[in-house]
Amino acid sequence: MRTVSRTDGLHDAIVIGAGSGGMTVAVGLARLGRRVALVEAARVGGDCTNVGCIPSKRLIHLSRDPAWRADPAGVLAEVRATRDGLAAREDREMAAMEGIDLIRGRASLAPGKRVVVERPGGAHEITAPHVVIATGSRPRVLEIPGLPPERVLTNETLFELERAPRHLAIVGAGPLGVEMACAFARIGTRVTVVEVAPRVLPAADPEASAALQAGLAEQGIGIRLETRAVGYVPERPGLRVEGRAGAELLDGVDAVLLAIGRVPNVEGLDGAVDAGPDGVLVDGWGRTSAPGVWAVGDVTPLAHQTHAANALGRRIVQAIALPWIPRLGGPPVIPTAVFSDPEVAWVGPPAAERAARCHPGALVDLRVELADTDRGLTDDVRRGFVAVSAVRLTGRVVAATVVGPHASELLPLLTFSVSRHVSLLRLQRMVHAYPTLAGAIGSVTDEFARRTLPHLGSEIIAYGRYRWARAPSGRRARTTWLQ
Amino acid sequence: MRTVSRTDGLHDAIVIGAGSGGMTVAVGLARLGRRVALVEAARVGGDCTNVGCIPSKRLIHLSRDPAWRADPAGVLAEVRATRDGLAAREDREMAAMEGIDLIRGRASLAPGKRVVVERPGGAHEITAPHVVIATGSRPRVLEIPGLPPERVLTNETLFELERAPRHLAIVGAGPLGVEMACAFARIGTRVTVVEVAPRVLPAADPEASAALQAGLAEQGIGIRLETRAVGYVPERPGLRVEGRAGAELLDGVDAVLLAIGRVPNVEGLDGAVDAGPDGVLVDGWGRTSAPGVWAVGDVTPLAHQTHAANALGRRIVQAIALPWIPRLGGPPVIPTAVFSDPEVAWVGPPAAERAARCHPGALVDLRVELADTDRGLTDDVRRGFVAVSAVRLTGRVVAATVVGPHASELLPLLTFSVSRHVSLLRLQRMVHAYPTLAGAIGSVTDEFARRTLPHLGSEIIAYGRYRWARAPSGRRARTTWLQ
Repeated sequence: MRTVSRTDGLHDAIVIGAGSGGMTVAVGLARLGRRVALVEAARVGGDCTNVGCIPSKRLIHLSRDPAWRADPAGVLAEVRATRDGLAAREDREMAAMEGIDLIRGRASLAPGKRVVVERPGGAHEITAPHVVIATGSRPRVLEIPGLPPERVLTNETLFELERAPRHLAIVGAGPLGVEMACAFARIGTRVTVVEVAPRVLPAADPEASAALQAGLAEQGIGIRLETRAVGYVPERPGLRVEGRAGAELLDGVDAVLLAIGRVPNVEGLDGAVDAGPDGVLVDGWGRTSAPGVWAVGDVTPLAHQTHAANALGRRIVQAIALPWIPRLGGPPVIPTAVFSDPEVAWVGPPAAERAARCHPGALVDLRVELADTDRGLTDDVRRGFVAVSAVRLTGRVVAATVVGPHASELLPLLTFSVSRHVSLLRLQRMVHAYPTLAGAIGSVTDEFARRTLPHLGSEIIAYGRYRWARAPSGRRARTTWLQ
Repeated sequence: MRTVSRTDGLHDAIVIGAGSGGMTVAVGLARLGRRVALVEAARVGGDCTNVGCIPSKRLIHLSRDPAWRADPAGVLAEVRATRDGLAAREDREMAAMEGIDLIRGRASLAPGKRVVVERPGGAHEITAPHVVIATGSRPRVLEIPGLPPERVLTNETLFELERAPRHLAIVGAGPLGVEMACAFARIGTRVTVVEVAPRVLPAADPEASAALQAGLAEQGIGIRLETRAVGYVPERPGLRVEGRAGAELLDGVDAVLLAIGRVPNVEGLDGAVDAGPDGVLVDGWGRTSAPGVWAVGDVTPLAHQTHAANALGRRIVQAIALPWIPRLGGPPVIPTAVFSDPEVAWVGPPAAERAARCHPGALVDLRVELADTDRGLTDDVRRGFVAVSAVRLTGRVVAATVVGPHASELLPLLTFSVSRHVSLLRLQRMVHAYPTLAGAIGSVTDEFARRTLPHLGSEIIAYGRYRWARAPSGRRARTTWLQ
């Protein structure tokens, strides 16, 4: 029987995992005077710092710079240098932070909020009133017959490449897939994207997928939709795919990036909390099925994005350290940003969900092309738009999508509007600086006013008729959506 | 005695000047079914299209493109081509628009809302219930002894240059001066900026001026503050300046751009309305001293920006065509954007006005450096910040400044907040996509919460003590500012 030493009562909370979600909770609690044990088996900073946002955004930025672009190996080395510098800084900060005990080891959770940390020197059990599971996720993998392991990449190995592949096949056209497609294409790699769905970025609205797909094609990126990777022929080399267009050999593929989603790291939880196939089940405040046990970040089924982890982490800090503050409001509204070319950003329920939940007569869709704006003219913006879905008559913003240059930076006013139920008629009264792309948001509000104000009578009738009508799915409109 | 033909009763409104403000009013009224006479002596589109925003932003955009930058003459030709294309389109649109009679001629206004239009064929008098003065402004000029006229540039002649100057002296470091300094420096012109004030962009907050000045210096742009241009030596050639650093000859200056402000075009108004040195006096709805006579755009003392003209123009449309809608709210909150490098954008009263109107204890200033954000790290953003001035305790946003890449696109959420009196505590509850520069707005809200929530007692006392206290100027705080 192995020896387990024990420590009780030293900590107010144990946080398992020092990624974005875990660090948000640990730092937030420590700043409010709580004593936190932060357990990390691998690198502080988690996926975001080490194998996610930071290296990918650094690569995207450098690949846009003509001076860097000519030296792909130099770009990849600089990506690692930036990443390593930030990781070292975060490690130092966590190790030195007042109120946080950084424990390097692999933790498992047993019922009764008992956390066992395996370290080279043996196992150690610690307990605390609160345990926060922030163990993250790992890339989903796919067996491709004939594909040797050294040619398989995931986000965990991609940024270790010392040379850019000659022909990179990317399986999966989600955010990671399309971002890396654009970045590698810019540094001279031939790129082919293989996606089982009928469009790129299947989670975005179809019009965003269409605009992005046109942009990818213009950059010379191959796209195979409704297609699967079915085998690899090392002697060519080449990747065999099958799909809509029949069977095909993607010639010269020397690396395959798997970007087909994530698997939550629920091992080591030992049934201490309820979990489904998408991870540990939580409510909008991070509570799991076990009292005093919380979960945050990619280990939950919520949006797998750093800012989603931060948002839930902040709620957990409030719930643990400031429990007297009422926990009002629904789940936070989480925007999505994809740093492809063109950039794509959106907020609010996707088109399919809107269609399923609302009668088509209850919402109005508005769209302004960036190419039709004056800033689009001066800046050669040929592709992109601001699209808003709003409740008829009241103008309440339900969802919005922006495609185009720095779309993610144009989104916050729309995110606020979706979060706070702001009406387009209210937004219309603010003034946008000219000439900006954000001015297209103003044009959307003008278009709404033009469609609504001269026809108030019929709009009131339509509102009364469709606002509470059944959606085609047969479900009643969710009242939290519409007002 | 000259012949004057007359037309009465054909039009609901006469708009004098087809620039941004005039077109906004004419199009707005025409869309609401009114018949408008739009009189223009020069080119449709006014300054913005022909000699302002459009050519300047096109030049700024092209000068950033390494492929264009190598061919300065080609850049200048392309700027004109873009400008001419848009001007022709706007001219066609105005000439063809249902409800608008585009009259080409020079208008003057006599008491009694009588408008006389001088045309090659003779003078013609028209009258209407409403007359809108949108005659714009022209560049303020400065006599520099010895400077031959062919070496003097203003915004009206700058974009006619066929070759870039070798050494361009820019007199005036306002928005036009600093934008053109950056653009011409990028296409290889040596640039020196001469400004009488002690800082560049004197209308911005001092911290924005400091950041911009450092950026200009880094681009090799010469800056002479508290300095005047006093003479030109054609035989060198060179521009003599005198100021803080004594007298100096700016060697090799072959062109001088005057960017020292605007003079309103009030000639031809003949005392029909009250006007001051800064133009026709108007209230927040564009009303002049004469009933039924309105004024909009640069001819008024209000902000000389296209979006300010549009905003007031829209109000005039509402006041004329939809007079039953109550005219609520104060003057519109007008943001400012300067497309220099770094970009500078701000909204709300400037620092000096805040200091004059509020006790220093009533406001809190917050600032987050873009270089300290994760997106700043990945994108090499070394300079720039988001700064917010808010009411203590309540967090109401009073003013904000953004400096850095696409600062103007980051401003709308802050413009909305200033316009609608949104609190930083409310903004804190929304989620920003990661990693974006706009996320710095989220960091500002966090900083406010950290400074406020743990010290609620003392913040409440400070609020009670300073909220109604006299400002150092002796004036009481304006209650419309603070809540």
